[in-house]
Amino acid sequence: MIYLDHNATTQPAPAVVQAMLQQMSSTWANTSSQHGPGQDAKRALGAARAVVARVLGCKPVEVVFTSGATESNQMAVRGLLAAAEPVRRRVLFSRVEHSAHLKLARALAESGVQVDWLPVRADGTLDVAAAAALMGPDVALVSLMAANNETGVLMPYEAVAQLAQNVGARMHVDATQLIGKLPFDFAASGADAVSLSAHKFHGPKGVGALLLRQGTAFVPPTPGSQERGRRGGTENLPAIVGMAAALERLGDLEQQAARIAQLRDALEAGLQQALPATHVWSQQVARLPGTSYLRFGQLSVDVVLQRLDTLGVAASSGAACSSGGSEPSHVLKAMGVPADEALAAVRFSLGSDTTHGDVGYLLNKLPPLLAPLLREETTTPSTTESP
Amino acid sequence: MIYLDHNATTQPAPAVVQAMLQQMSSTWANTSSQHGPGQDAKRALGAARAVVARVLGCKPVEVVFTSGATESNQMAVRGLLAAAEPVRRRVLFSRVEHSAHLKLARALAESGVQVDWLPVRADGTLDVAAAAALMGPDVALVSLMAANNETGVLMPYEAVAQLAQNVGARMHVDATQLIGKLPFDFAASGADAVSLSAHKFHGPKGVGALLLRQGTAFVPPTPGSQERGRRGGTENLPAIVGMAAALERLGDLEQQAARIAQLRDALEAGLQQALPATHVWSQQVARLPGTSYLRFGQLSVDVVLQRLDTLGVAASSGAACSSGGSEPSHVLKAMGVPADEALAAVRFSLGSDTTHGDVGYLLNKLPPLLAPLLREETTTPSTTESP
Repeated sequence: MIYLDHNATTQPAPAVVQAMLQQMSSTWANTSSQHGPGQDAKRALGAARAVVARVLGCKPVEVVFTSGATESNQMAVRGLLAAAEPVRRRVLFSRVEHSAHLKLARALAESGVQVDWLPVRADGTLDVAAAAALMGPDVALVSLMAANNETGVLMPYEAVAQLAQNVGARMHVDATQLIGKLPFDFAASGADAVSLSAHKFHGPKGVGALLLRQGTAFVPPTPGSQERGRRGGTENLPAIVGMAAALERLGDLEQQAARIAQLRDALEAGLQQALPATHVWSQQVARLPGTSYLRFGQLSVDVVLQRLDTLGVAASSGAACSSGGSEPSHVLKAMGVPADEALAAVRFSLGSDTTHGDVGYLLNKLPPLLAPLLREETTTPSTTESP
Repeated sequence: MIYLDHNATTQPAPAVVQAMLQQMSSTWANTSSQHGPGQDAKRALGAARAVVARVLGCKPVEVVFTSGATESNQMAVRGLLAAAEPVRRRVLFSRVEHSAHLKLARALAESGVQVDWLPVRADGTLDVAAAAALMGPDVALVSLMAANNETGVLMPYEAVAQLAQNVGARMHVDATQLIGKLPFDFAASGADAVSLSAHKFHGPKGVGALLLRQGTAFVPPTPGSQERGRRGGTENLPAIVGMAAALERLGDLEQQAARIAQLRDALEAGLQQALPATHVWSQQVARLPGTSYLRFGQLSVDVVLQRLDTLGVAASSGAACSSGGSEPSHVLKAMGVPADEALAAVRFSLGSDTTHGDVGYLLNKLPPLLAPLLREETTTPSTTESP
């Protein structure tokens, strides 16, 4: 199988699986236990925390381990909001956040919090001027993703963090799609809280982190004694150690990003040449290296994915978490894309294990399958081409 | 090492580790993805859900996978409370719930929810008459553990569920310590929501479930598209499959419980015979088979644990999650135990891998180490024994 759905999840790396196995067979005690095995587990937890901090540019004390990005995102927003001064009751979300995060935003709005929306332009980029206009002393919190999971568009989270800081608001960045694909430095980001998820960069599922700037006022939504009182629940040490192993093996991300972007660009150019009806969203703006979000004319995504399936290629109709639904993507909607075009959206997301051969195979095999369908599409609804 | 801290955590069983390995190397796709690998993962998720449902006596649709018991507990309380009719603003917790759960209770109280406390008697059992007196049409929810993590005392959750039902309140049962040690049947429990955690029964860390009765009004505290909208976040499939494997291998729990209780009783009897200053809490009431909570006179638990450490025996001062603190156990406090006695509390928790040999070794080695200390204690503060 050719796996081109790396934004949905990635295969755990052998080094990650090995690290988890090692933990499960030896250091399985409870990190809170005072006995020898518990203290061994606690040391392993500390070592993993130090690795995460080193790779992501934060202090070890700023790492709060969680069960993944959705928990991190919601913990950040709820925890920062609960700690905000009473006069700050407005929260800003971008319109293109992950669907689970938008559900949280709607839940907050229903509970009486004023939610304002940061708009994006037709090319999927954030409108920073519009964001600036929405800032004010009544803003508690801004929540913005570092890179969009569907289009791959990179968001100006540093600039928005500066805007937030100017009005004394907290800044949360959902870096789930960015971390592991491009360099990230917490200290330099200007953010107060940053979410990540290990399974997006060949780590284990069920583990992530919230990086939380030291000294930031925070009311833990899941109280307990672990993680310095910021998140209750026995630490998932094998997965945490697996996440640290996944971060350690990332290597030179600039170099890898260049390689993957080259493959992605070759894929897009090849498809556009073979099938001129191919339209790539956000092609001219800064994107994640491996993400390509496109449509073939208005061919239904289901038809395209079915053809890809016969070729043994795994791709997506957009975010995995909302796939299976028949609604057009909220991201494309926010970009002003009409529904009939949005329902044709196909996402390819390449990763560190994607090869030239994969792209070549796809460019060889897919256009011949789609070309007749596209010809049919352009001739419909006209019933005849004969004179 | 002789591990007598099974209430804190347990070693993942080889079959569990094997099942996780298998998932991580083959079925690692996102269960929400429409492509072939995603659908394979979705099937594996469904199969694991069916196993959990079969073993615990609920419907597959009633299983909500979570990151563990703390999340399940807090999700249950917040989710059921948010869905309660506006007139129901009172919540009942027992005084001996897990410390993280009590932190949630205090957080609710601070946010304006009226929290009332179900008391326990001196022997650690719940006072059902007092519970009945606290019920009323303004109660939204009762939250009660099935078995206490420190004393092992079994709680009358079925009777309390009936009381809750009589006033139209929801019933949440934290069955974290019971499931895997004694038979449990969700349908028969009368509970609306039940928490469990896999690492307490030789499953993986970082995974648990909330069993949520079908049709129960519930506002998801962590919204998202997974788990039928009840819990957002990519499912941790390897750990979920590991949890199912752990439940499947449990076997005949009645028989195992009888074996473990026999070992525990032999341990207590042997210690009481060799060291008459040994006091076992809740010894005369129904307890989890492997739990023994005791003190040796008023010997400081730190001294006892240090001696146990030299013997290569891992035990605990009580709940792992509050160990390391110097506060007396809130459970013993609720039972009316004076602080100086509570600070001497030692918990042994035996499990399915505990042997006769382990108990024999402990009975052989521990009393000679503690007897001189106890003699010293009884002669202090008298300064001399010479005539």
